[in-house]
Amino acid sequence: MRMVDIIEKKRDGHRLSKEEINFFVNGYTNDTIPDYQVSALTMAIFFQGMTEEETADLTMAMVQSGEQIDLKAIEGIKVDKHSTGGVGDTTTLVLGPLVAAVGVPVAKMSGRGLGHTGGTIDKLEAVKGFHVEIENEEFVKLVNENKLAVIGQSGNLTPADKKLYALRDVTASVNSIPLIASSIMSKKIAAGADAIVLDVKTGAGAFMKTLDDSIELANAMVQIGHHVGRETMAVISDMSQPLGFAIGNALEVKEAIDTLKGEGPADLTELCLTLGSQMVYLAKKASSIDEARKMLEDAIASGMALQTFKTFLQSQGGDANVVDQPSLLPQAKYTIELEAEVDGYLSEMVADEIGTAAMLLGAGRATKDSEIDLAAGLVLHKKIGDKVTAGESLLTIHSNFEEVDHIKTKLYENITISAERVESPVLIHKVITA
Amino acid sequence: MRMVDIIEKKRDGHRLSKEEINFFVNGYTNDTIPDYQVSALTMAIFFQGMTEEETADLTMAMVQSGEQIDLKAIEGIKVDKHSTGGVGDTTTLVLGPLVAAVGVPVAKMSGRGLGHTGGTIDKLEAVKGFHVEIENEEFVKLVNENKLAVIGQSGNLTPADKKLYALRDVTASVNSIPLIASSIMSKKIAAGADAIVLDVKTGAGAFMKTLDDSIELANAMVQIGHHVGRETMAVISDMSQPLGFAIGNALEVKEAIDTLKGEGPADLTELCLTLGSQMVYLAKKASSIDEARKMLEDAIASGMALQTFKTFLQSQGGDANVVDQPSLLPQAKYTIELEAEVDGYLSEMVADEIGTAAMLLGAGRATKDSEIDLAAGLVLHKKIGDKVTAGESLLTIHSNFEEVDHIKTKLYENITISAERVESPVLIHKVITA
Repeated sequence: MRMVDIIEKKRDGHRLSKEEINFFVNGYTNDTIPDYQVSALTMAIFFQGMTEEETADLTMAMVQSGEQIDLKAIEGIKVDKHSTGGVGDTTTLVLGPLVAAVGVPVAKMSGRGLGHTGGTIDKLEAVKGFHVEIENEEFVKLVNENKLAVIGQSGNLTPADKKLYALRDVTASVNSIPLIASSIMSKKIAAGADAIVLDVKTGAGAFMKTLDDSIELANAMVQIGHHVGRETMAVISDMSQPLGFAIGNALEVKEAIDTLKGEGPADLTELCLTLGSQMVYLAKKASSIDEARKMLEDAIASGMALQTFKTFLQSQGGDANVVDQPSLLPQAKYTIELEAEVDGYLSEMVADEIGTAAMLLGAGRATKDSEIDLAAGLVLHKKIGDKVTAGESLLTIHSNFEEVDHIKTKLYENITISAERVESPVLIHKVITA
Repeated sequence: MRMVDIIEKKRDGHRLSKEEINFFVNGYTNDTIPDYQVSALTMAIFFQGMTEEETADLTMAMVQSGEQIDLKAIEGIKVDKHSTGGVGDTTTLVLGPLVAAVGVPVAKMSGRGLGHTGGTIDKLEAVKGFHVEIENEEFVKLVNENKLAVIGQSGNLTPADKKLYALRDVTASVNSIPLIASSIMSKKIAAGADAIVLDVKTGAGAFMKTLDDSIELANAMVQIGHHVGRETMAVISDMSQPLGFAIGNALEVKEAIDTLKGEGPADLTELCLTLGSQMVYLAKKASSIDEARKMLEDAIASGMALQTFKTFLQSQGGDANVVDQPSLLPQAKYTIELEAEVDGYLSEMVADEIGTAAMLLGAGRATKDSEIDLAAGLVLHKKIGDKVTAGESLLTIHSNFEEVDHIKTKLYENITISAERVESPVLIHKVITA
């Protein structure tokens, strides 16, 4: 088998066999196939696409390129959730305790990562004492006992995907649906998921800017799951504006607590119930999505969801008192209001730019070595469609430095108030359950 | 400027500016842009194409990536001819003396190369004593005196093209019209051509298998010439079967001599007159193509063309007696006839496979280090459309080894004799003079 023939075959629109896909993924992983041939292939894939079968074969080839986490010691069906990223996305913090409260085992492997705010681990570290440095055995024991634990990412998972992603990033072949879909799914499968729930964001603040692209990506991932025997469902949710109100690490922990109490933002609550229902259903803890949703609503109402969060924090060394006294979370030195300059309706709030403003406050990492300011961030008071009066606060800036004029300028530039009434955006565009 | 943005721009079907093209060609030449980005770009070009202007800019960027030959010391308009390659193509050997005989300066820089037979230099070295190791000054003097000289390739011409071609070869992006066109034209321009005549072959034995592709390539090159101020004309000629009768080095020298005497194969003669007329016209030695053709016919009839060839051989140390006594050329030990097995009409003769048979006899190099057998090769007696009787010789094998059964098998496999009468293929499909 020769790589040049594989490139030519794809270039001419033909289907690659499983053997050909394994040949190139293995060859690339072990450095026998050079970057320049792989970048030509990924560009050909960009133009010619891949069939469902090819995409599934690519996914499994990447899974098999490295270690695979074995979660068999954990009882029950392990359902993992993945979000394609957005701004102010507190769903992971809420969903873990929420579905664990109804008996779904959540064995979460998480990272820190770059972005507008920290990763799930950074956020949880806003809780004093909380840590993820636990042994695998302890991790398994915790999930079996409490149905919820979080551990730091370790091991050499999907090295082929890491190498391929880095190459695509510098060769303009990131935006290919089969390549994105296989990349995401390979990581979830290698991390031991039996079933997968996907939250595909759409809109200005999302990786996928259009609804059509988002649906195509979601369908591609659901089909991969189908082909490789991992039941997968997906939700297409709005990211034209930030989700919920909080953008920042400690701020999002507080918002998650509010939501688990039944007092969270409507959009965040609704999205968590929708995604959570799919997780509960796929874990076979309910016989229908509707039944699953009812169970989750009960878990919030009864306080079980909140209690699960407390137990979880304690079990990993965290101070569970934050749940009742959120003021124990890191607090920024300054809170500064961003006041509306005119009367009208909030009509636009460019999600990724608002996220960047939060990052500039210190909430996220610009580079791998940046320090995160856990207290910093933004809390929105108005969202798209809301009526606004001049002088009223649009949002509060939480900052550890006083001089925030450049942040304010950026925020004003990316928030539009119009004279005409504006509809608030649809939150959930589509649910894919098959 | 970032290479990844240039790739993305082309990927999305936009036009690259001259600055962007220079940036990537220069960066690639001096190793500041890596292979993997360039291969992604060439694959994007494969799919999205290039405008005439982009193709011209790419051509000139490659010309400027290395040395450029200065032929100003040679009087007159220097017209170079390029053939896209074929089997048994003796045109260069004929055209040089033919157009030089009517006053067109031919300053030929030539190579050896891989292929079915050797390059022009290999063929000429079949003439005892002939050599191309001459100084530049001597070269210029010879062209000014005799209008014809051949020198070996030297200097660092179009290094960007060399690097790019090697990369395209292993990344399945050879078959892109703008990339092929700019590659060919950059070499001719760097070698000092004022005007260019192109012989674009079409058919089974050619690089371009279909007439449409051949016309597209020819037009692309003519347009490059137009954009960069080098008048260019082209002929699309048939390569569904070998051109002329001879395939082999000494064999083709003999055939060239026959043709210069007016006794050559009809197809080779016609093609040389067609290409030669364009060269004479572009060199402004005639005021029309028709007048140019008449001049060339006269040069053959008067013996001037043959005399020019003799003078040329002598001037570079060659034994000009070969012209009158072709038996002085290297002779193979064995001549073996390939006899027709049935009666009928020769209907197919797969040019590149016939060429490969000649190479297996030793006429061409399979690898850079192969030794060429100057005497070896094939001489056809029948061509497509000819009536054939069982037992009659289809061609003569010239070999320095006796056991040629495997060669015979290959030849039989690629020559078809059918019961029905077959038309001989059109030789000249199209002439592009604008």
